[in-house]
Formats: sequence, structure tokens, C-alpha cells
Amino acid sequence: MPDERIIATYRIETPLPLEQATAVLAGEQSSGTFVNVPGETDELRRRYGAVVESITPLDESKTPALPGSRMKGNRGLYRRADVRVSWSIENFGYNLPTVISTLQGNLYELAQFSGLRLSDVEFPDSFGQHFAGPKFGTAGTRKMTGVEGRPLIGTIIKPSIGLSPQQTAELVGKLAAADIDFIKDDELLGNPPHSPFKDRVSAVSEVLNRHFDKTGKKVMYAFNITDELDQMQANYDAILAAGGTCAMISLNSVGLIATKKICDRGQLVIHGHRNGFGAMNRHPLLGIDFLAWQKFWRLAGVDQMHVNGIANKFWEDDDSVVRSMAACAKPLVGTPPVLPVVSSGQTGLQAPETYRRTQTIDLLYQAGGGIMAHPGGPGAGVAALRQAWEAAVAGKTLADYATDHSELRQSVEKFAGAHA
Amino acid sequence: MPDERIIATYRIETPLPLEQATAVLAGEQSSGTFVNVPGETDELRRRYGAVVESITPLDESKTPALPGSRMKGNRGLYRRADVRVSWSIENFGYNLPTVISTLQGNLYELAQFSGLRLSDVEFPDSFGQHFAGPKFGTAGTRKMTGVEGRPLIGTIIKPSIGLSPQQTAELVGKLAAADIDFIKDDELLGNPPHSPFKDRVSAVSEVLNRHFDKTGKKVMYAFNITDELDQMQANYDAILAAGGTCAMISLNSVGLIATKKICDRGQLVIHGHRNGFGAMNRHPLLGIDFLAWQKFWRLAGVDQMHVNGIANKFWEDDDSVVRSMAACAKPLVGTPPVLPVVSSGQTGLQAPETYRRTQTIDLLYQAGGGIMAHPGGPGAGVAALRQAWEAAVAGKTLADYATDHSELRQSVEKFAGAHA
Repeated sequence: MPDERIIATYRIETPLPLEQATAVLAGEQSSGTFVNVPGETDELRRRYGAVVESITPLDESKTPALPGSRMKGNRGLYRRADVRVSWSIENFGYNLPTVISTLQGNLYELAQFSGLRLSDVEFPDSFGQHFAGPKFGTAGTRKMTGVEGRPLIGTIIKPSIGLSPQQTAELVGKLAAADIDFIKDDELLGNPPHSPFKDRVSAVSEVLNRHFDKTGKKVMYAFNITDELDQMQANYDAILAAGGTCAMISLNSVGLIATKKICDRGQLVIHGHRNGFGAMNRHPLLGIDFLAWQKFWRLAGVDQMHVNGIANKFWEDDDSVVRSMAACAKPLVGTPPVLPVVSSGQTGLQAPETYRRTQTIDLLYQAGGGIMAHPGGPGAGVAALRQAWEAAVAGKTLADYATDHSELRQSVEKFAGAHA
Repeated sequence: MPDERIIATYRIETPLPLEQATAVLAGEQSSGTFVNVPGETDELRRRYGAVVESITPLDESKTPALPGSRMKGNRGLYRRADVRVSWSIENFGYNLPTVISTLQGNLYELAQFSGLRLSDVEFPDSFGQHFAGPKFGTAGTRKMTGVEGRPLIGTIIKPSIGLSPQQTAELVGKLAAADIDFIKDDELLGNPPHSPFKDRVSAVSEVLNRHFDKTGKKVMYAFNITDELDQMQANYDAILAAGGTCAMISLNSVGLIATKKICDRGQLVIHGHRNGFGAMNRHPLLGIDFLAWQKFWRLAGVDQMHVNGIANKFWEDDDSVVRSMAACAKPLVGTPPVLPVVSSGQTGLQAPETYRRTQTIDLLYQAGGGIMAHPGGPGAGVAALRQAWEAAVAGKTLADYATDHSELRQSVEKFAGAHA
């Protein structure tokens, strides 16, 4: 094992002096008890102890961000800082869940902190040799769909729940006819009695295979394989057998290790849905940043990753979404980029701002209601989204471009209110 | 599939009228888009839509608990409530991760809420027929260790990281000689170069098997099998082959589905470590309560579950710990109780208060430094813990009981300061 270190960056808030609090953090995650015990020698501490690499003080607060910090601070203030802490990789090797237990673990529980959040992780190079990362990622998704030179346009089957496989397949037929690139199951839809997974794969694939035979275009459909492991494997097999190219997993609900087991097969593109992420992300001084979070899933092999979207229907602001998209595009210890999936309340009207802020077309732009509720039907919805992106990349306003693109014009008229 | 519903209870905070916000919650997790789409009929909504069962208003706040709620509230106030929402189990069947995506999923992201936390889940009876729950639990752990009529006394090998298998085994020998019931790896220790998992199992088991041959007492050792799935399976096999009885998993780091896959084998007691739990639990209006969280892991088959401890070194207060212990003791849709693992800064001095508050001896009382740093050595540390529990159950004060129990007296003298 090479002599390398893994470095974690935390944003902390503490009533204690910053050096003292950070020493507690490092101690908890290496020796890890509240008194010195026999056997914990200086040699052990030197070799396996966590090292505080840097402390960058930030502002101070009069009130604690989180409950449970029992100490009294100097002048009653809670100090904030960004701190970097490192561990020898000898502590855990390439055991990814144990890396997580080391970098996060009991830290959130410490009464010495009134706020603690993992902002980023720097994996050493050898992790890139041990973990292959996304088998397909952005480049592989483009290759499998034949979409180059523009974002992929995708949608979600709605209503989320209740349609039969046959009804789903009919909708898929309409969307394929509208020249869509990508379609996905909703994360609420798994394998319920009214839409058994196998029947859905079968009905949808028949439509998409027929479309391919006729047009040469392979629409990518992300079937939601989320379930117990054996069932996920069977679902995966069913997609492969039907000629499908993509499987979706609700990452947080399934967990890292079963997801990696599926990714390891490497025959299907894995669409990573991040539902549940807000539970460990919405408070600014608790949990984990997307920047750190996405790295673990990329090492596990996820190919496409939800990042929310500009002017989304959720709580997240645009700056945060832009940071997430940049993170996806950045190679990770030599493993390829993951394709960012832009979604949530997207109608196409956000295309110019998305492009202005990110200057990239390497994304899957996904609209649910934005396509399905288009006044001209789904076909017009897809056309409008493409037109919106043409305008964005050409640097034209949507209003200008809409004058001679009627589908876009209808979108602007229908959805402008939704973003007001 | 029976005509049953699953009911989730949330604590919410919202700037909107409570009825309106709760309707958004229910809508997001059934139809799930921001505009009505074709195909979403009244019939579909009736059958698959989430139903708001009750709304219990609580207090109001002048400031939002979490950022990102974009709406303005009436009189600028944020209203809090406990709301109950139900779904037909037809929506997801017995697909546990999809239940999680339905009950949590994107809810934490909604801008309509300035706080949202899953407090509890009521599973319908048929879940108890589909999921076996803990194979061993409290009763099975007692049977395998032969400990009846008192709490199991356990410890964690410290230092957390750095000891060789041989050094670990030597320590285990001392602890076994001290008549301990249970020992565990630290969650920071997986399968590193300085303590390869197989060598550790081998060295430790040799000592414990010898102890069993000599005394007839089977000390339970929870080897930390946390790793990728194939490696966890191999680790499990190694424990079985060596005559071990227990495997530990860092639940949040591994994830629900790989954990269930391991639990399904049913040959070893599964010790569930909850490290990382604070990330989704420490803020009172975000994430998930232990009450709800533990139910998913119990359905997956976890036998022993960390609950923190009275007067712990972490942020959690005693009331919360007492609630967690009560939750573990309660049968879950017909599946047996899970054994609560009481730990974190435990020295034995908390035994009387733990017993007074919970009136139970069905627990694994776990001390790290509390045993290893005892002035008389680990043997005296174990004796002191047993004495503390004897005193607690007899209704005597530790000071009284310590007068003719020297190990307890030493503990009281050494650790009283730690709880001051």
C-alpha cells in the first residue's frame, strides 16, 4: 500500500478554541475514546493518528447552529472554521464504507461541535487505480444514445405511480416519436402490482426496439431497478435481455455497497437518483456537501448523477447547483466525469441561464411536467426543449428564438408563470 | 397484496397554511410534478395518492429552522405541526428502498417547508409476514452468550486502530479472563494491512475458543465485516469457520440493501453500528428520528442496535436515549425486539440512572475506556461494571455498594470526574 493520505475538509462550528475542537475531531476518528488507554503509544499515534492539516477561521455566531454543544464558549461565541484533517490510507485501505466511517462516523455526535459538515474529500491517486469509477459516464452515455453536440433531452414518466406497463409503453412511444433521447421511471415506481418490473421492461423495450429498427435511434430508458439485491440483479438481467441500456438506482435508499455491486457488472449505464439527499444536506452546518458526497458514488461506479437544476422547484439555490455541475465534470483521481442530470421544475426556460452559468452542454436536461404538460403534447415539449438549448448556446434570448419556433413560443407562454 | 396502508408521521415547519403544505408533501410523493399532467385521473389519485390522515398544530416560530423556504408566511411566522400521511402499500409492495424513497425521497428538498423530519413509520401487519426481522435479537443474543438475569457487559478494543491481530488477541484473552460477555472491533477498524481481517478472526477466535473449552463460556466477539459485499461475505464465512458468533456492520456506511443481504444468511448475530446517524438526526427539524430509522434496519434483520447511552460523551440528551431503548424493546409488526447497545462514555456510573429510567436489563452495556482504563486493569473494569448493575437493580447507590466492592470503588474514584 502506497504511503498516501486522504484529506477531508470540514466546516465546523464550536464553542471551544478552534485548535482544541479540531484535535477532538482528529482524536475521535483515530484512537477514539475519552481517556488514554494502555497500548496507545506515541508510535501508534504517529502512524495511525489523524493529522490536522490546516484551520481557516471564519466568522463567529452568537447562537449555536445545532443543539447539543454542552460547552460554554469564550464570550459566549461559537467560532466557525474550515479545517482539513488527514489520515494515512493504511488505516482503512480501499475499504470505502470504512473510509466513510472514518471521515464521518461519530463526528456529527460530538458535543464539542455546534455544527459539523464534510465539505470535500481528496482521495489519493491510488484510489483511482483501485476504483474504476463510472464505466460509461458522460462519454459512454453519448456513445450509447448517439447524441453529440448538445445536451441530452430527457423526461420522467408521469404520473409517478398508477400507469400500467401498457400505458407506460404507449407514452414511451409518443416520446420516442417526439425524438426524445432519454426517459426514466419515477423513483416512486419500483415493482408494484400494477406495473410489475418485468412487464414494464418488456412493454417499453418492445416500443423502443421497434423505434430503433425504424429510425436507428436508441432512446435510453432508465428502468428503476431499486429493490433488494437479488431482485436488483434479476431486474438488471431483464433489462439486458430486452436490449435496454440503463438502470436507475435510488442511491440513498439502497446504499453504497449494494449500488457498487450492481455498478461492478458494467453492462448497463447506472442512473443515480439522489432522493433523500436533503436529509443530510439542507442544513448548512450539518451533513455533507454534494462535492464530497458525489465522489463516493463515482468511485462506486455511478454513471449519471442528479444535481437538481437552475431555478428549481426545490430549496437549493442556483450557485449550489452550478457548483454541483462543475464537480461532476471534474475527473476524479483519473476516473472519468459523471454525467450531471439536471432536473426539478425544468421547462426549458432555464436553458439560457444554465448555459450562461456553466458553459457546458455535457448534461442530461430532464423535464417532467415541462414536456408532458406542453400545450402541443409531448412531441412539441421535446422540440421546445431542444430549441431552448439551441437559443442558449447561440446566445439568443428565448423571446427572440421563439418568434420563428412555435413549440418554444408555446412553452414560454405556458411556463413563464411557473418561474415568476 | 392485502388492502393495507403505511402511515408516516412527520414534524414539519412551513410558512404556508398547514393544510396547504401537507397537501404538497402528499402530492410530491404520489403524483410528483408541479403541474397536472395528462393521465393523472381522479381514479389514479384515489387509488395511489397519498392521504393526509391528521394534522396536529404545534407552536410557531419567527425564524425558519432551515434555509430555502422561499414563501412568505402569514404574519411572517413559520408554523409547526405533526402530520400523518398514508399510502396504499400497493404503491411499492414490499420493496423496502422504494418505501424509503416514498416516505422520505425528495421531501427534504421542498421549498414549501422550512423544516421536515420523519418521526415515525407504522408498517402494516403484512410487512411482519414478509420480513422476518432479527434472527437472534435480544433472546438469541442471550442464548448464544448464556447471559441471563442481567445486562450483557461488553467492551470495544482500544486503541481503535494500530493493534496487530496478535496484540488484539492478547487483549481479548485478558478480557475473557475478566469474564466479559461481549467484545467488539472499533468501527474504524476494518481490514487494514496492520490487522488483516482473517488474521484477526483467527487470532481472536483461537483465544476465545480456548476460553470456551476451559470455562464453558462463549464470549461473543463482533468482528467488523464492513466492506464491499463479496468481501463482507468472505469475512462472514471466516467468522463462521472460526467458530465465531457475531459480525458488526457500520449500517449507514454500507447501506440498507447490502446489510439485508448479509442479515438474510441468518447464521451470525448482526451487530448494527449506527455511526454517521447524526448527519440526519442532530437537527430537530431535519432528517429522521431514531424511532423511524431503527424500524427499517430491524426489518432488514439487524440483531443489535446502538442507542448511545445515559450521560454520554455525545450531544444527545438522556430523554432521547431512553426513547430509543424503549423503541428497541417494542416488537415490530410481530418481529422480535432488537437488543439495544448502550455505549459512548459509559463507565458503569450511569447504570443506576439507566435502570431507573428504563427499568430493563435487556441491553448490552458497553464501555471502552470505562473498562480498559480502570486502575485495576480490564478485569477489574468488568467486575466494576457488573457491580454497578447489581447496585442499580437492587436499588442501592453506587457509594453504598462500593463500600464492600473494591473494583466499583476504584471506578467511582476514577470516573466520577468524567461525569462531573
